[in-house]
Amino acid sequence: MKLHILGCYAATPKTMTHPTAQVLEIKNQLFLIDCGEGTQVEMRRNNIRFARIQRIFISHLHGDHFFGLPGLIATFRLLGREKELHIYGPKGVKEAITLLLKLGNSWTDYPLIFHELSSSEPECIYEDAQLKVQTIPLKHRIYTNGFLFSEKPRPRKLHIEAVKKFGIDKAYYRKIKNGADITLEDGRRVANKQLTLDPNPPRRYAYCSDTSFDPTIVPIVRGVDMLYHEATFLDSEEVLASKTGHSTARQAARIAQQAAVGQLLLGHYSTRYKSLEPFRAEAETIFPGVVLAEEGKAYEI
Amino acid sequence: MKLHILGCYAATPKTMTHPTAQVLEIKNQLFLIDCGEGTQVEMRRNNIRFARIQRIFISHLHGDHFFGLPGLIATFRLLGREKELHIYGPKGVKEAITLLLKLGNSWTDYPLIFHELSSSEPECIYEDAQLKVQTIPLKHRIYTNGFLFSEKPRPRKLHIEAVKKFGIDKAYYRKIKNGADITLEDGRRVANKQLTLDPNPPRRYAYCSDTSFDPTIVPIVRGVDMLYHEATFLDSEEVLASKTGHSTARQAARIAQQAAVGQLLLGHYSTRYKSLEPFRAEAETIFPGVVLAEEGKAYEI
Repeated sequence: MKLHILGCYAATPKTMTHPTAQVLEIKNQLFLIDCGEGTQVEMRRNNIRFARIQRIFISHLHGDHFFGLPGLIATFRLLGREKELHIYGPKGVKEAITLLLKLGNSWTDYPLIFHELSSSEPECIYEDAQLKVQTIPLKHRIYTNGFLFSEKPRPRKLHIEAVKKFGIDKAYYRKIKNGADITLEDGRRVANKQLTLDPNPPRRYAYCSDTSFDPTIVPIVRGVDMLYHEATFLDSEEVLASKTGHSTARQAARIAQQAAVGQLLLGHYSTRYKSLEPFRAEAETIFPGVVLAEEGKAYEI
Repeated sequence: MKLHILGCYAATPKTMTHPTAQVLEIKNQLFLIDCGEGTQVEMRRNNIRFARIQRIFISHLHGDHFFGLPGLIATFRLLGREKELHIYGPKGVKEAITLLLKLGNSWTDYPLIFHELSSSEPECIYEDAQLKVQTIPLKHRIYTNGFLFSEKPRPRKLHIEAVKKFGIDKAYYRKIKNGADITLEDGRRVANKQLTLDPNPPRRYAYCSDTSFDPTIVPIVRGVDMLYHEATFLDSEEVLASKTGHSTARQAARIAQQAAVGQLLLGHYSTRYKSLEPFRAEAETIFPGVVLAEEGKAYEI
């Protein structure tokens, strides 16, 4: 898994900051998470191939997470897209996009498929052979979901040296990878565990933005390899954070600590702050594995 | 009059080009003309003071002229705007913005006033003591208007040397500026023309984008000081231009020539072209006063 940060600031743009958008790369699939204004330009700047985006996940319908979507949909059309595009987002996203396309008389030539969300319980919204995506209901000023991306366990890996040592023919390799034990020509039985190595552990990434401090998400994000948790403010603005449905860096770290995640990636910084280092410093008083999201950077998970 | 070009490229963004947005500065008023995605960032980059924008004119509801508007309206709110904002645009603009604000539960705290347009005839849509704004019905794939900004004639200017020569008291200056003749203490009558200078001639700016080649606009834009006319393509793509409701550089120059305008400002270039010089060269075969719009530049009218 690789996470590209296209934008990680809250609304009220400055010249050099961008509202929320990230691209999660899992094998050959690219998943766009949120789509603030200007996302399509940041996709180009970060060499994200437009055609590889097939699924877009929108956390909530505030402009800084959503106002780049109509333009991106229009651009896909101009680029001659034919492949389906799936959009997962709060109820209302379909009505909004449909109205804008209608007013511009700019219907897409490719299938545009909406998956509208309205449940307040976590639910699985996408699943394929490699991964599963679940919602993380968040507490914000309007209906909002985070998203949990979980790789599925991979098959065990062939232990090349072991199979060679036992003189096993290549014809059996696929069987072994699928878990079979092997009977050698001399009648000896070799257990699959002797012929294979543990697969890479499945990775999990949780995206939580925008949200107030809300420990009810802890069981859902427990043990993820990386947790992106919004930290719009520092603790000195805790009252403002609570009033606006946002979190402070310290609160984000508390969630990370309680959920025992691998790493905490902070973002959605208010543009009022000149330096981001205080975010790291504040979060590290609670939780050690803090990474500051930076626009234009990619993070291995 | 001063025209700031924030964006002057057609849709399909590249990393370094922006869709249409311009700011026309007339005395202390700023008028925003079209508002493609990313306009608010370009406004900051060009040091346009947000609070000075009171009226926004939208030519048509294609994304590259309009998808920056919801975010700008949201940003005005975050900046604590209290002043009215007037939006002039095709019927439907109100429904679109209202839906997006409703979905985000982000009603503006300032009065947002829509002036929806649906006439196919030129009409005056704004007038104050200094200027008048009229629509220029254009031929595009959807309902589209250009806009003609006309300064009103200014009062004559006081001829300081003349009034001093006649020994006229300052108390009369305002009267003179308002057009009065003066009777001197010795009974002589001095005509206003002797005491004043011609005012600067009123300026006119016409914005025409997007549009097919359409000579019916010539009477409306006749003699304007500057005509911004879209030139999405070069003449080699004339068929494509006609099919998509756009113009070529040569066609824009024909309008400029027939309307005997002062200067022709070209823009709305397709991002397929690597260099803009061929646009100038092609237009100059028809009309001499060609200027290429460039993003981040300002033009005196």
